[in-house]
Amino acid sequence: MSTARAHSNIAFIKYWGNRNENLRLPVTGSISMNLAGLDTTTTVEFDETLADDRLLLNGEEQTGAALDRVSGHLDYIRAMAGFKQRAYVESENTFPAGAGIASSASAFAALTLAACDAAGLDLDERTLSMTARLGSGSASRSVPGGFVAWWAADRHEDSYAETIAPPEHWDLVDVVAIVSTEHKAVGSTGGHRLAPTSPLQTGRIADAERRLAACRQAILERDFEAFAEVVEHDALMMHAVMMTSQPALIYWTPDTLRLIEAARAWRADGMPVCFTIDAGPNVHLMTPAAYADSVAAMAAALPGVLSVRRADPGGPAHLLVEPR
Amino acid sequence: MSTARAHSNIAFIKYWGNRNENLRLPVTGSISMNLAGLDTTTTVEFDETLADDRLLLNGEEQTGAALDRVSGHLDYIRAMAGFKQRAYVESENTFPAGAGIASSASAFAALTLAACDAAGLDLDERTLSMTARLGSGSASRSVPGGFVAWWAADRHEDSYAETIAPPEHWDLVDVVAIVSTEHKAVGSTGGHRLAPTSPLQTGRIADAERRLAACRQAILERDFEAFAEVVEHDALMMHAVMMTSQPALIYWTPDTLRLIEAARAWRADGMPVCFTIDAGPNVHLMTPAAYADSVAAMAAALPGVLSVRRADPGGPAHLLVEPR
Repeated sequence: MSTARAHSNIAFIKYWGNRNENLRLPVTGSISMNLAGLDTTTTVEFDETLADDRLLLNGEEQTGAALDRVSGHLDYIRAMAGFKQRAYVESENTFPAGAGIASSASAFAALTLAACDAAGLDLDERTLSMTARLGSGSASRSVPGGFVAWWAADRHEDSYAETIAPPEHWDLVDVVAIVSTEHKAVGSTGGHRLAPTSPLQTGRIADAERRLAACRQAILERDFEAFAEVVEHDALMMHAVMMTSQPALIYWTPDTLRLIEAARAWRADGMPVCFTIDAGPNVHLMTPAAYADSVAAMAAALPGVLSVRRADPGGPAHLLVEPR
Repeated sequence: MSTARAHSNIAFIKYWGNRNENLRLPVTGSISMNLAGLDTTTTVEFDETLADDRLLLNGEEQTGAALDRVSGHLDYIRAMAGFKQRAYVESENTFPAGAGIASSASAFAALTLAACDAAGLDLDERTLSMTARLGSGSASRSVPGGFVAWWAADRHEDSYAETIAPPEHWDLVDVVAIVSTEHKAVGSTGGHRLAPTSPLQTGRIADAERRLAACRQAILERDFEAFAEVVEHDALMMHAVMMTSQPALIYWTPDTLRLIEAARAWRADGMPVCFTIDAGPNVHLMTPAAYADSVAAMAAALPGVLSVRRADPGGPAHLLVEPR
């Protein structure tokens, strides 16, 4: 029996579209920050008496697609370990479902660490990251700590994430402004498949190395103005591709656009804040820690904002030695 | 002295970006419908006693950029006619400035017809269209009547607009939902210059012939479902390029997005309606005439909609024989 904990992460340069759907090999690299306190803790126990895998998520037994996806991931880990025992998996998130925080990244990172350890596999961080990637692409980025780059590549063993700066490198805060708790109509896995139907995805891919280099440099130099520019540009690039997919994926609501306008206006007024948006309507406002309380209060005061949640840079996924 | 009247037009396949800024030669073709009742009426009189051109717009004497742009256009027409007399220009719109209706298209179409006639030039529609284009790209489309295609080309004499179907071909109505009457921060001429700074513009251009062909066929076959799909897709393509320009041009407001959501929801519910949006926040809802009253009432009931205005397909720009 092994227990692991992983943080969710927020991408600054986005992952949207795969070159290989089965292996979740992305068309471009991406860069993210782990989110401390927005965690998944997962315990895995392989048990020869079990006929099927079982999954308890936030205390509720799962069946169907959720269980199938976890089982498929465990199959890969079982194949690496060379045994076929079914597993009992218990997983809990510190953030509610539908709160605008992607759960699959932290979930598959924690599952990978716990399952590999329970299976007796002693894997390095790189192998854990590429293994987590098979369950959920962005989970590869929740394995290393702090500010993270995930490499795009044609082969499984070349596409993994690694730390580009530790959590303490830059005191950035993610102030998540939640405007909707509804489940999205088209999830990320389905969305990635639609990415190539946009006539604009090719241009987004062709320009990716420039954005990745600019974002990495802005992080390394703690240059907020340069960071803000490339992060907003990249988020708009992804949503541009989404809304020109066929069918169109429009994840924004009027409240999303109000937050985009607000972040741009606040920054024009001298406040160091920028927005980024994942495949949903909620808005992540990035700001240095000294401004986080102000940004959170200003965001909470906007119409349509249901709640705000803040997260500092988080460390790597890790095994918990103490029992829970 | 000559007087001409031209309609504004709404583009279904958009014009965004020039291959030649001076000649306003567009990077792609576009397709539009003239808007009956949203008109500019312009009188031009060349007068050898005038030291400078004069421009009266909706009763107000203009100076600066507005006058300079008109003077520059008159210079071209004077060069064609072979004389240098300055002109007195009086122009009136039937729609208020800042009401979400582009005025430069109808303005430069009417100015071109009136000035060429006053200068004694007897030009065919094609030449009038390419001449109007020099003043404002979309003005080329307000010269012919009904449903109009404007050809992209490398040479001045090959880039003009012509009718693809007369106004009576299809009883489409443009229900303009006005959410803002403010002047936009970046006008079309400046916006066209920013288009190539978006990494997505190349993909938008590469896919243009497909969209043009699909829109033309949908109009010729009066196939509303096919029309709606390509018109919305094309508008989203243009706004995708705008919002990924550097700097970003975000013309939408929360109210714009509410109308996008509404149009998509209404159509999903069986109402034949679709949206298109120019370089501004106001939303043009296209619908067959039988549904126009319903669409106008539904749009007017949405929060943030200040007013609605409807326009049927309009005829060509034309000289007025009677004095005003």
